[in-house]
Amino acid sequence: MALCIPNAQISRHHEVHNPNIPCSGAGAGAAVTPSKHVRSNLVLVKRTPGLLPVNPLYHSNSLRLVAFSTSESPMRASGGGVVRSSLIDPDGGELVELVVPPKELEAKRDAAAALPAVRIGSVDLEWVHVVGEGWASPLRGFMREEQYLQSLHFNSLRLADGSVVNMSIPIVLAIDDRTKEAIGGSPDVALIGPNGDFVAILKSIEIYKHNKEERIARTWGTTASGLPYVEEVIKPAGNWLIGGDLEVLEPVKYYDGLDHYRLSPRELRREFDSRQADAVFAFQLRNPVHNGHALLMNDTRRRLLEMGYKNPILLLHPLGGFTKSDDVPLDVRMEQHSKVLEDGILDPATTIVAIFPSPMYYAGPTEVQWHAKARVNAGANFYIVGRDPAGMGHPTEKRDLYDPEHGKKVLSMAPGLEKLNILPFRVAAYDTTKNKMAFFDPLRAKDFLFISGTKMREYARNGESPPDGFMCPGGWQVLVNYYRSLQAEEAGQQSAALSVQRI
Amino acid sequence: MALCIPNAQISRHHEVHNPNIPCSGAGAGAAVTPSKHVRSNLVLVKRTPGLLPVNPLYHSNSLRLVAFSTSESPMRASGGGVVRSSLIDPDGGELVELVVPPKELEAKRDAAAALPAVRIGSVDLEWVHVVGEGWASPLRGFMREEQYLQSLHFNSLRLADGSVVNMSIPIVLAIDDRTKEAIGGSPDVALIGPNGDFVAILKSIEIYKHNKEERIARTWGTTASGLPYVEEVIKPAGNWLIGGDLEVLEPVKYYDGLDHYRLSPRELRREFDSRQADAVFAFQLRNPVHNGHALLMNDTRRRLLEMGYKNPILLLHPLGGFTKSDDVPLDVRMEQHSKVLEDGILDPATTIVAIFPSPMYYAGPTEVQWHAKARVNAGANFYIVGRDPAGMGHPTEKRDLYDPEHGKKVLSMAPGLEKLNILPFRVAAYDTTKNKMAFFDPLRAKDFLFISGTKMREYARNGESPPDGFMCPGGWQVLVNYYRSLQAEEAGQQSAALSVQRI
Repeated sequence: MALCIPNAQISRHHEVHNPNIPCSGAGAGAAVTPSKHVRSNLVLVKRTPGLLPVNPLYHSNSLRLVAFSTSESPMRASGGGVVRSSLIDPDGGELVELVVPPKELEAKRDAAAALPAVRIGSVDLEWVHVVGEGWASPLRGFMREEQYLQSLHFNSLRLADGSVVNMSIPIVLAIDDRTKEAIGGSPDVALIGPNGDFVAILKSIEIYKHNKEERIARTWGTTASGLPYVEEVIKPAGNWLIGGDLEVLEPVKYYDGLDHYRLSPRELRREFDSRQADAVFAFQLRNPVHNGHALLMNDTRRRLLEMGYKNPILLLHPLGGFTKSDDVPLDVRMEQHSKVLEDGILDPATTIVAIFPSPMYYAGPTEVQWHAKARVNAGANFYIVGRDPAGMGHPTEKRDLYDPEHGKKVLSMAPGLEKLNILPFRVAAYDTTKNKMAFFDPLRAKDFLFISGTKMREYARNGESPPDGFMCPGGWQVLVNYYRSLQAEEAGQQSAALSVQRI
Repeated sequence: MALCIPNAQISRHHEVHNPNIPCSGAGAGAAVTPSKHVRSNLVLVKRTPGLLPVNPLYHSNSLRLVAFSTSESPMRASGGGVVRSSLIDPDGGELVELVVPPKELEAKRDAAAALPAVRIGSVDLEWVHVVGEGWASPLRGFMREEQYLQSLHFNSLRLADGSVVNMSIPIVLAIDDRTKEAIGGSPDVALIGPNGDFVAILKSIEIYKHNKEERIARTWGTTASGLPYVEEVIKPAGNWLIGGDLEVLEPVKYYDGLDHYRLSPRELRREFDSRQADAVFAFQLRNPVHNGHALLMNDTRRRLLEMGYKNPILLLHPLGGFTKSDDVPLDVRMEQHSKVLEDGILDPATTIVAIFPSPMYYAGPTEVQWHAKARVNAGANFYIVGRDPAGMGHPTEKRDLYDPEHGKKVLSMAPGLEKLNILPFRVAAYDTTKNKMAFFDPLRAKDFLFISGTKMREYARNGESPPDGFMCPGGWQVLVNYYRSLQAEEAGQQSAALSVQRI
């Protein structure tokens, strides 16, 4: 394990981090005060509506145009102390954390045992994880109808003080008729996870209709068959939604050897503070990192330094929840990312790799807002957005499901995300004159080779090498090994199927 | 013609209004100052986010809870003078009016003749009418992509000053490939109406893709076949959208004997001012008015008076644009509404009847926001919303397309409409113990008879009378005559078809 991970996580999991990587970090719960030097760099132009440029809607060049808002509000630390942070405020002003204190656990577990039980699936559990740690702050549970409707129609929620936060996808829990009937008039229910454990209590519940067609149409902009989340999660789900306030009994763990990567927004903020970050730029991904991605991330850091930031920190933040079956699995991606840092393609001193626990919707412009908003809650004030974020091919037509340019346009206009600086992805491709990944230069387009995800997988599957400089060799080997194991597995299944036929 | 219509309109059309109906009104362009007495009633609690009640999202009881914002901002009158008004501000602060001054008409017509031509359909022309008069203020033309995406995803537009206005449906103009090619690189185009006249110039155009599937899914929350606007307007339209700023050559007229009802937001505001209205409550409809509607409108006025308003004016505002084929046609509805006032069911002294020129989307919770927002631009600060506004049956399933309660919920939470007071529709039904329409009392539910639109049409079609007191006799006769003429027409068509078969 060569990645720099926070002390608190390391000590919890009894792992030793690479001493060559300069990880600084305060212990859990310690008060962190950025140095005076760093703080002085944080006080830049506060971005208010009145100061917006003439055309504020598409702030794709925000890297050069605007600075970020830094209200140094005190945040309550989970230990009860107050951490002063210069990071961007979480939505709603305070990070939501819904895991019950250990001393209350016994009593809560007893209370849960006396409540009507709602069994939840593995993707529901991922949402309990997401909401419980505050990625969806200020959301405090599964959505009630009032929140659901606002999310569906406006991609945002209006708070009691009149302010607006972004909330582009409905975070809801579906139940079937029988479960609804069993709940009866109980104001609270217990949520039971896929393995039979009590996971959480959902309080002051509200049950309302789950109009799947409308939810799908308004979230994905299509009702075509074959949308991964729709087919696997929504269509089999019940016809009712149950909203309420969550009390999560214990932190959600997966015991897959990757839990130490699953840093909560609170833990990430603590880590950014301990590193005295004066800018945090987030990179969401669900694919292996090639050198074009790395070029972009390194170039972003260079540009932030040019702007006057002293210590921009990269949050390399692969999505760890539900993905479609042909995406590269999380464990393989984490190993690949690890090699990228080992090989020095990204600098571990200024990079934090962590897992974003959210499931993937593949809902393009609607979902990219969620991806960005969740990272604001974790302390990121810069967000890198690429071509066709959270997009995929149309499930039934031969075209992209979304206009590849809409994601960044919609993101840059999204209500509640005005405080976030959107960094457009510059297109990188393989420069055949230099044998490395470089920013595409349209004036000498013929020199560039675009290697699509499909092409990359084809190389790896066939055991072929991509052009030198496309990906670090260590990272590439991880992919080759994965696809070989996949082929071996498929061959095994085929021969097993043939054996069955022969019987 | 027994309705009270503004002096300016009457003189233009050389009609004489009923002298029994007390129409007061200043001439066109005159400065109107509400009396001191009335103005003192206008200064109530200014509604700002900080003053919202604890749960501000669903202000269905706003009639009792809140008052309205009255900034007495000067508005430019079309004649160049300044009208001081105490009415609610139009969205964006200033009413948009895009009809070119008569002295420029000749030059503009010459300019149009030199531009690439885009032929538009009758529904497109209705949108030119709507946008040109400022119903969609601050929109100044057909949407560019930036506005289209905001409307589609957020149901609202962010303005340059950071403020947000509601804009729930995309107001767009579609063109086909050939037209796009013919436009080439021209920055402006001329719009040619269905009858071959130059209608408008569209300036600084932007052409972008018309993804019909996504537009339909996000606007209607379904892609099922059989949505009237989709089938008749969107599906036959081109695959490109053209946005730009409108210069409308002349006010849009229909020459159907009803143009005098088509008051612009400017004309309505002038009329409200001339009547010294201190509250304007709008009632959108596309159906005949029965006594239950009238009860609701009269009761609303009574409640506004109780609240302390001295002169609440009702805007009875039937929709006049595209409707589905089985809706009662506009001319019949206007005649029916006219009888309702003649019969004294509504008081002409406190009622203005005018036509809202918008086409109908039948898009439920999405569309009701548009219906309300447009009336704000015309000066209404109270909006009556009923069960299932702008709803219809699902085109392919046996259910309502929208949850009948969602319309008013979504409306009351809609971004940019916080300044509007939403008045929920109280359910009225036929009280068989009193032989009249009355507010439904669930404690004696068995006494009430619900007469649906379908049932009403069935009565009228069969020449049967509904229960006494359901609708004023004059209004009912209009409907009976209409359905009889329809049956005669159908019989004529059938016999013509039979004749053809015989030949």
